[in-house]
This record gives sequence, C-alpha cells and structure tokens, in this order.
Amino acid sequence: MKHTSPAATIGVVGGGQLGRMLGEAAGPLGVDILVLDPTPECPASAVVRDQIVGEFDDENAIRHLAERADILTYEIELADPDALETVSRELDIPVQPDPTTLRMIQDKARQNDALAAADIPIPDYTPVDSVHEIRAAGSDFGWPLMLKARRGGYDGRGNVPVNSPNAATGAFEEIGGGALVEEFVSFRRELSVIGVKGAQDTRVYPVTETIHQQEILRETVTPARCDDATTQLAQSIAQDVLDMLDGWGVYGIELFEVESPDGSPTIYVNEIAPRPHNSGHWTIEGAFASQFEQHIRAILGWPLAPIGLKSPTISANILGDVTSTQPAELFGVESILSEPSAHLHWYGKHEVRPLRKMGHITLNACDASDTLDDLHDTAQSLIQAVSFVE
Amino acid sequence: MKHTSPAATIGVVGGGQLGRMLGEAAGPLGVDILVLDPTPECPASAVVRDQIVGEFDDENAIRHLAERADILTYEIELADPDALETVSRELDIPVQPDPTTLRMIQDKARQNDALAAADIPIPDYTPVDSVHEIRAAGSDFGWPLMLKARRGGYDGRGNVPVNSPNAATGAFEEIGGGALVEEFVSFRRELSVIGVKGAQDTRVYPVTETIHQQEILRETVTPARCDDATTQLAQSIAQDVLDMLDGWGVYGIELFEVESPDGSPTIYVNEIAPRPHNSGHWTIEGAFASQFEQHIRAILGWPLAPIGLKSPTISANILGDVTSTQPAELFGVESILSEPSAHLHWYGKHEVRPLRKMGHITLNACDASDTLDDLHDTAQSLIQAVSFVE
Repeated sequence: MKHTSPAATIGVVGGGQLGRMLGEAAGPLGVDILVLDPTPECPASAVVRDQIVGEFDDENAIRHLAERADILTYEIELADPDALETVSRELDIPVQPDPTTLRMIQDKARQNDALAAADIPIPDYTPVDSVHEIRAAGSDFGWPLMLKARRGGYDGRGNVPVNSPNAATGAFEEIGGGALVEEFVSFRRELSVIGVKGAQDTRVYPVTETIHQQEILRETVTPARCDDATTQLAQSIAQDVLDMLDGWGVYGIELFEVESPDGSPTIYVNEIAPRPHNSGHWTIEGAFASQFEQHIRAILGWPLAPIGLKSPTISANILGDVTSTQPAELFGVESILSEPSAHLHWYGKHEVRPLRKMGHITLNACDASDTLDDLHDTAQSLIQAVSFVE
Repeated sequence: MKHTSPAATIGVVGGGQLGRMLGEAAGPLGVDILVLDPTPECPASAVVRDQIVGEFDDENAIRHLAERADILTYEIELADPDALETVSRELDIPVQPDPTTLRMIQDKARQNDALAAADIPIPDYTPVDSVHEIRAAGSDFGWPLMLKARRGGYDGRGNVPVNSPNAATGAFEEIGGGALVEEFVSFRRELSVIGVKGAQDTRVYPVTETIHQQEILRETVTPARCDDATTQLAQSIAQDVLDMLDGWGVYGIELFEVESPDGSPTIYVNEIAPRPHNSGHWTIEGAFASQFEQHIRAILGWPLAPIGLKSPTISANILGDVTSTQPAELFGVESILSEPSAHLHWYGKHEVRPLRKMGHITLNACDASDTLDDLHDTAQSLIQAVSFVE
C-alpha cells in the first residue's frame, strides 16, 4: 500500500455537517474530499477541496463528481442509488456502501424485511396502503401503534403514533400513503451502536445511550447506562446487522432497549443509517478514532482504526431555538468556549430554522473526578446558555 | 460573544503543513481559513476555504487576503512584517502575533537582545560582520562556537559550528555575512515548550523533549524525561518568554537543558517561533486541545482551551528519504494504518525532497501497559517501515 498526494479523492453525495466532519477527518489521512450539495457554500465546503453545486439525485452532477474522484460515497439517504449505479458502471468507479444497501435502507418496509430475514429482532410490522389496513394491523398488534412513511422520514418526520382505529384516517392522510405500521414499543432506553465494515473485518463501537425529544436527538451518553448483559446483546445485534449489510463503511444502528416480562435483556433494531450518524459524533473526542476516520478507511479498503473508548463522553446538539428561518447567529458561545471539558463543533450553516441541527458539543472528563452525570449536567447548562435569540 | 457562519475568517500567510493543520482545527470552531502561498495546491489548500497563490511577501497578495478576512496571521517566518503592517493600517485589520514580534524574531541577534534584556537565560552571543569578529568572539567564548545567520535560517540551515580560528573564514563564507556567534552549548537534552498568549491569560503546555538529527526534528517525547525541577524551570522560563512577547498566538519555545557544574537545573532559550511549531504536533492527540486550536482561539481573542496532557505521547516526522526531488509516493503506509496506537498526519505535498517534512505520526498509549519507551520503539519501527523509495 502506498500513499501519494492525494492518497485518494472521495466524492461525497451531500455536503452537510456529516460531509464537513468527513472533511475534517480526511486531512490528516491525506485524503481529498469533493462534495455534491445543492446549497452553495454548504457546511462541508469550507473544509474540503471543492464543492459541486447540484441536487443529490442529479445524475449529471454525480458524473462530474465521479470524474474527479477515485470512489463515491454518500452522507445522506436522499442520494439516488440508481444514479450512483449508473455512474459507477459508466465510469468504472466504486460506490461504498453498495447502492443496493442504500436502496434497501431507503424503504423502511424493505429494511425491516431484510432484518427479519436475518433473524435480527425488530418490532412487529406490516406495510399498509390504506386506512383499512392500518385498522387491521391494530387488531393484530393492539393500540397504539406507530405509522411510518416507508420513504424519506428523518428526525421524526414521517412517524405518527396512532392511538385508536378512529385516529387512523388522520394519521394516514398525514403520511400520505406508502407506509408501514409497527407495534408501539415501550422502551426503557434508546441506544445506538456505530458499526464499521471494512475490507478485512468489522468493528462495533461501545454502546451509546441516545436521548431524544420531539423525536430529534438531543444528547448522547457513552458508555450507555445499561447493565453488562444488555450492552453485550446490543453489540452482538449490531454485529449481526453489519454481517447482513453489503458494502464497506460506517453504519449508525439505532436500537430500543425494552422491558421484557422476565427481566432478561431485550433489544430491537429501530433503524439503520448507511453513513456516519449523529449518535456517533462523540467518537471524535471520545474514541481512539472517530466514525468519520473509520468511514474513510473502510470505504477505501484500508485497515480500520481502534474503536475503544478514551473516556466517558457526553454529546449534546445545538438546535435552532427559533420560530422561523433567520440568519444564523448564536449568542452566548463564550460559555462553551470557556468550559474546560467542552469541545465545540459548529456546522457552518448560514440559516437557522426551528430545531435545525446547527452544531454540537462534546464533553470529556478532564480529570478523574468528573463523572458522567457531572458532564451531563454541564452539557445541559451549556446548551441552555446559548441561543439564536438575543 | 456570538457565533455566525463563519465565526471569523482568518487570512494566513503560508499554506504549508502548519496552515493545513490550522485548517483542520478551524472547522469544528466554525472558523474559515484562507491561505496565501506561492505553491499552487499547497498543503493547506485541500482543507481550507480558499488559497490565494502569491509570494509570502507580496503586498498586493496580502491585500487580497486581507480584503476577504477578519484578521491576519502567519505560519512561516518568511512573512513580511512591513507588508503586514502596511496592509493592517490601510484596511484596518488586525495582525496577530504583532508584526513587531515577527520582525524581532526574524533577526536572531535582535531576538537574543530582547531575551537578554528580559533576563531570560540564553547562551553568550555577539553579532559579527567579519572573520575578524568571529575570531575575537572565539577568544572570549572559547572554541568551538556556533555561527548563525541572523536571518532566514531554519531546520539547521544557517547554523555552522566553527571549531577553530582557522575555520572562521570558510564558515563565514558559508553564512555569507549578517551573522552572530553563540557559545557552543553542550546540552543534555533539547526541550520545547509550546506557549499560548491570549486576550485574558497565557498558558504553557507540558514540556516536550525534542530529538534532532542533522539539526532536523525527528521525534518528540512528552512529557520530557527530565526531573521535576528542570520541568518546572522550563515552564517558568517559557512563561517569561511569553510575557516578553507582543501579540496573541501560539509560540514554539525551543530550549537547551544543560549540565551545570553544581547539578542544579539549567535551561537556555535557543530560539522562538511566533507560530505553531513542529515540536507541538503531539498536542493534536496528546493534549486536551491542540496548539492549532489554541492559535485560532488566541488570535481571535477567544477564551483559551485547556493545555493538559491526555496521555504520554510520541511524535515522529516522516522525512524525505530520497537523494533528489521526485513525486511524493510513500510505500509501506499500511504499517502505520495498522498500528492501533498510531495516528497518521500526511501533509499533502506533491513532491518529496531530501529530508523534507512530508508528514508525521503520533503515538498515544492505547492501554495502561503501553509505556513511553514502548511507544518510542514502535514509532521508530514505523518510521523505518515507510519509504519514498520502493
């Protein structure tokens, strides 16, 4: 194996915060990044070789990206697997993870089918195309149940709880067809495991506890505050998921830790992201190598890096606390910059929108007396100390 | 204090590896970097907003840089303090560290004068303008002595040991005028302290031991293997140096630990760099915040970050092991990528030259059983495992 300048050029569909953090990880490795994103001066643009301005599914734009790259990847599920396959074939350029994996993950029903076929535990589910089918599923699974759009949902969009047969009509109209229902899972905790699949082996990071509000990730706690048996089960299931997937790269594997009648650990897979994931941002400071470095190593077929935890770590998202779109201006940031345990990650978005992810902070123990609970308290007070409203 | 996108734009004179690592540190902080460098596709160019191609002392190019930036800094001593002052005055843009500091440091005689005036211990020295004056200095200081170019020397260039009065003529011709002589210091160790001077306070990192061959830095060991009294003295002298200097930013302070007749710790300042320094690259993984993040925080007047050591750390430079200039192609890099304790930093230079700095590796203890000596052994074997010669 040899290294030149650049060691490789990666064309990334998507130039949001994940593309930006890929860029930040690529520099030390000698890897150049090009991104394709419709927003001029997208978050990644400041830290990568170049941006091509174009839609995520614009085949011509993907072709331009591919002409200047050695390999293609994507940091957003809105990438188009058909266009990626076409360009890959035409220009004989690899795409990782495999577009078939992206296609499968884009459709929650197919994703569940694949998980079920691999004997990976998931909530009971069924695809539905009418109000009648939702009501039939409710008779099977009981009420409430969760109605999900098969495609395009993220950050809680596209998920609607349905409390009764009467609520089915309104819920179905909200989703607008192409849906599935899942049994309603009453979970003790939400967990996440970042997994990485490389040319030689697969690895899973320590288990992270994820804390959501309004179905948007707010905080992570690593290691998760589960018992050892649950932790081991979560990692083992994540490993099974990796084994099932085609293609090299990092995957975010979201899990539910549920109460079981006999008290034995029970884990369901909630969903998979075929890319670095918000619940793995803690790895930048908290693990020996970050999920972004791993993604680069994995897709290039390089040796993977260690996944070990350096020290207990909290992450907390900086979300848009505004009621309408406005230029991004965050007040009170000196509180973050002055806190010794805190690391700032600002995504470089020019506009703030309600609940938009604008950045995050990571908190690591600076000395042995800092407990995970202390760090969690500090993170919460720092997030409260900043605001996009003066 | 508020944060926008970008939080600030820094114009950097110089876009080599130091500019590249500034760029890598700037992304998470939301800071945009522009660099001015004469080499198209300079190392920093892949990870920053933009490069202006121009000479370091080209006043018009500096003006273009300044027009797009909120503040100017430099990562190379070849920056021109006069041009920086002119542009700063014309466009009312700050330059940090202060160009007067750059001007003082560019001239080793003036640097020594300033250190001596501040009662900071340095070797005996005197400026010389003739062979006669070298010989006179030799009578005072004894032989051998060290002849140094007052300007432009780095990585050992411009330093010539003079063993006897007869050798003075050849040495003076090699330097070519504008020189100073220093007493020859027989040191036990070479040390370095990275210091940072900010708006509110100054901080010094743990002391680093620097290992040179052919006057080029090869390895660093942190913490330095000195006794506690020497470590404290080194940090205290570095603090005195910071107090003496004008302007915010990071400084590399190179020191000699010398044998004293009575065994008490004795430290001389060798020289100062008004910028992040090769001997501080270990801070990227080894300290809570890197010298590059600190430089950005300092010049912007932001709160400084903690300087604490995370774990014992070795760095080792990847130098051009070639006999002539050729395209850069490093063989055997899988040995580095496969070593769990190692982090690669590749600078993205397209050409390798004899002893050119092409990258570095940092080794951290992965578990408690890794000693500093183990890491040092591993670093040496990794450096031997890679080569620009197939």
